[in-house]
Amino acid sequence: MNKEQALAIVKLHLTDHRFSHTLGVVETSVDLANRYGADPEKAELAAIFHDYAKFRDKEEMKKIVQEKLVDKSFLDYGDELLHAPCGAYFVKDEVGIDDQEILDAIYYHTTGRPNMTLLEKVIFLADYIEPGRRFNGVNEVRELAKVSLDNAIIQALENTIGFLMKRRHRVYPGTLATYNQLINTKKEK
Amino acid sequence: MNKEQALAIVKLHLTDHRFSHTLGVVETSVDLANRYGADPEKAELAAIFHDYAKFRDKEEMKKIVQEKLVDKSFLDYGDELLHAPCGAYFVKDEVGIDDQEILDAIYYHTTGRPNMTLLEKVIFLADYIEPGRRFNGVNEVRELAKVSLDNAIIQALENTIGFLMKRRHRVYPGTLATYNQLINTKKEK
Repeated sequence: MNKEQALAIVKLHLTDHRFSHTLGVVETSVDLANRYGADPEKAELAAIFHDYAKFRDKEEMKKIVQEKLVDKSFLDYGDELLHAPCGAYFVKDEVGIDDQEILDAIYYHTTGRPNMTLLEKVIFLADYIEPGRRFNGVNEVRELAKVSLDNAIIQALENTIGFLMKRRHRVYPGTLATYNQLINTKKEK
Repeated sequence: MNKEQALAIVKLHLTDHRFSHTLGVVETSVDLANRYGADPEKAELAAIFHDYAKFRDKEEMKKIVQEKLVDKSFLDYGDELLHAPCGAYFVKDEVGIDDQEILDAIYYHTTGRPNMTLLEKVIFLADYIEPGRRFNGVNEVRELAKVSLDNAIIQALENTIGFLMKRRHRVYPGTLATYNQLINTKKEK
């Protein structure tokens, strides 16, 4: 499957706005992959499909988590999380991508996880800083991304957790665990 | 043991500054107990002893956690957390207080925990808002404490987690779990 074929598949599942976001994530993740030594082809494919399940029916996704996924904890922290693990499931099941690195990058692109792979970090960060993103603090993360993948992700996690708490939304424990692991790694260096 | 006897014991273990903080926590926790229906006598005793272990040797406290406490997770999130669970241990072992409600209020006064008792909430919040506290955001929490114990604690948790992350300190997972539980309870009401 080449880039055009992949984009044609994903376009059917997304709004114009979300497809445009996806193109931004593709561009940024290839840049980050080249900068930090991840596989740019895998980064491109993971980026194209990262939001594949963004507009799937919530009840369908909850059922997938309950029946097909090992980790059910996503169910307790808000519907917004479902599209990432369910996206990985659908991309394997419907599109036929079975590269576990790519599937994991899709699975963890919203929450992160401790000890992310390089590809997971690239997709997580590209989703946060792609050129279409406009929220507070994003430019600081863009600057950090030019010099340190981990520092940029730490700042993105601080921003995201702060944003969620300010609005009294639940915060997925794995996202805090991602932060704790990354700053611990920094201290050990 | 009356209030004066308890204060005389604890004074030996604290600096003047920390003893003055303790007197503030005593005053505030009795106020909060009266306002929200906790036992003011238990609140007073828990407040007096909440920082009993604040200046104990860190290595001694790590040994206590390793050898005497069930939950070892405090060891992974910074020495600042040790004085609360170890304080509960020492207060029982050395002072002879064996009221589990009081010991739990001391144990969880820094981290919180999901489903805190009323007494635990009172001590947690009093420690944050006692009159000697001067940090950013404390006045907002003081105002909230006049109308809602839970909303004040939620705001204190948001402030504390934000403060820690801004400084790239580790955040104890139980503290985020406390926040998640409290906002979930709000939503269910």
